[in-house]
Amino acid sequence: MVALRETLLLLLPNLFWGAIAARPCSGVPSDMSYCLSWRVAVEANNAQAWRTVPAQCTRYVEDYMLGGQYNRDLDTAIDQIFIYLNGTLAPDDGMDAWILDVDDTCLSNLLYYKDKHFGGDPYDPSAFKSWAQKGVCPAIPAVLQLYKRLIEKGFKVFLLTGRDEVVFRSSTSQNLHAQGFTGHERLILRNQAYRGQGAAVFKSAIRKQLVSEGYRIRGNIGDQWSDLSGDCIGNRLFKLPNPMYFVP
Amino acid sequence: MVALRETLLLLLPNLFWGAIAARPCSGVPSDMSYCLSWRVAVEANNAQAWRTVPAQCTRYVEDYMLGGQYNRDLDTAIDQIFIYLNGTLAPDDGMDAWILDVDDTCLSNLLYYKDKHFGGDPYDPSAFKSWAQKGVCPAIPAVLQLYKRLIEKGFKVFLLTGRDEVVFRSSTSQNLHAQGFTGHERLILRNQAYRGQGAAVFKSAIRKQLVSEGYRIRGNIGDQWSDLSGDCIGNRLFKLPNPMYFVP
Repeated sequence: MVALRETLLLLLPNLFWGAIAARPCSGVPSDMSYCLSWRVAVEANNAQAWRTVPAQCTRYVEDYMLGGQYNRDLDTAIDQIFIYLNGTLAPDDGMDAWILDVDDTCLSNLLYYKDKHFGGDPYDPSAFKSWAQKGVCPAIPAVLQLYKRLIEKGFKVFLLTGRDEVVFRSSTSQNLHAQGFTGHERLILRNQAYRGQGAAVFKSAIRKQLVSEGYRIRGNIGDQWSDLSGDCIGNRLFKLPNPMYFVP
Repeated sequence: MVALRETLLLLLPNLFWGAIAARPCSGVPSDMSYCLSWRVAVEANNAQAWRTVPAQCTRYVEDYMLGGQYNRDLDTAIDQIFIYLNGTLAPDDGMDAWILDVDDTCLSNLLYYKDKHFGGDPYDPSAFKSWAQKGVCPAIPAVLQLYKRLIEKGFKVFLLTGRDEVVFRSSTSQNLHAQGFTGHERLILRNQAYRGQGAAVFKSAIRKQLVSEGYRIRGNIGDQWSDLSGDCIGNRLFKLPNPMYFVP
């Protein structure tokens, strides 16, 4: 009797798994289900080195970016940052630092990507250069609010971007100030030594340098995993949503 | 005229942002939109140290786990692992290793969590002990397939679990074998020295030891970020979906 029960118990999970695996996706269209999975794989850093949004997902990404879920995801991420922030000690000796990426972290490129099928088109360096040099990227409101709170609390905020120093220093600096990002410790752009290198390599080197100056990196925020990987990544990482492009 | 155009260009993003921020969530119910954001925050490691699924999301998580999207997300993650695997060199000297977690990576606890409101109830150590000691957790089919491929290709596979060595060695080993997980190099459970310590601490120490033995950790797969954080994490990390519980 016990043996029979044990046998049934051993078989049960397999039957159960078969049953749930066969159950359809609650009426969710197949493309949408796939694109949601793909987006989650991007956010979890499972999907890497992709060049464009998969063709069947450009409409999905458009809806995601404009339909409210992107803003919801941003707000949820920022809420988590505030929870962490409220549980940490206030800065003391002026060496507690936060690192924030710029593109699609502080400043939004959504207006630009709207004309690029929300990442359905391949990266176009010269078009992006023209756009970024205009210096008209809007702040991401939830990030601006957090940024101001960090500065108020006495953290040293470092803005760290893969944008080229020579090409973009002046437009980026002006854009950030115009959008209310004032009071940060430094705006660090990619200098000649790191041209052509991956963002993670460049950003790791800069973070290492900051740590060697005595800064403690309390938090690190970016929309790309290359902002959040490598050396001296910081005490907590926060990945902001971005299904439109991948920066290696 | 140019000045006017520039002014308009500067204002445009703010108008645009306001417009998209105000646009509602395409008819998606508010709870579902929130719960999706919360789930993405879990997968991206933004949400940490949560004890239960938020009350308004237990039904959402049930639908996610049973309605097909969980299986879709698993398949998408495993697809990414195969893409990475196909782009890496075949193992050579027998020292190329992969590390896989056990609970909800190799073996599914979905049957157990079905009775715990899919993570809506707080963790119940004695109930989980009874469940895990039965040794009846079903394999996650997509992971079993990948596991077999890793072994076939000649990788050394280490199964690394936070389950207690004394309490769970025999049931876990038997469960894994019964479900087809045979041929791994070692099954490593938490020994007395790491009782009460975080999973990341224990798993880091074990990975360090493997690296000191000469193993190269080519890939590391888990359903918890504590599987994928700390020292010697490996060349690539893969986060399998799990919105039911958080292991620190």
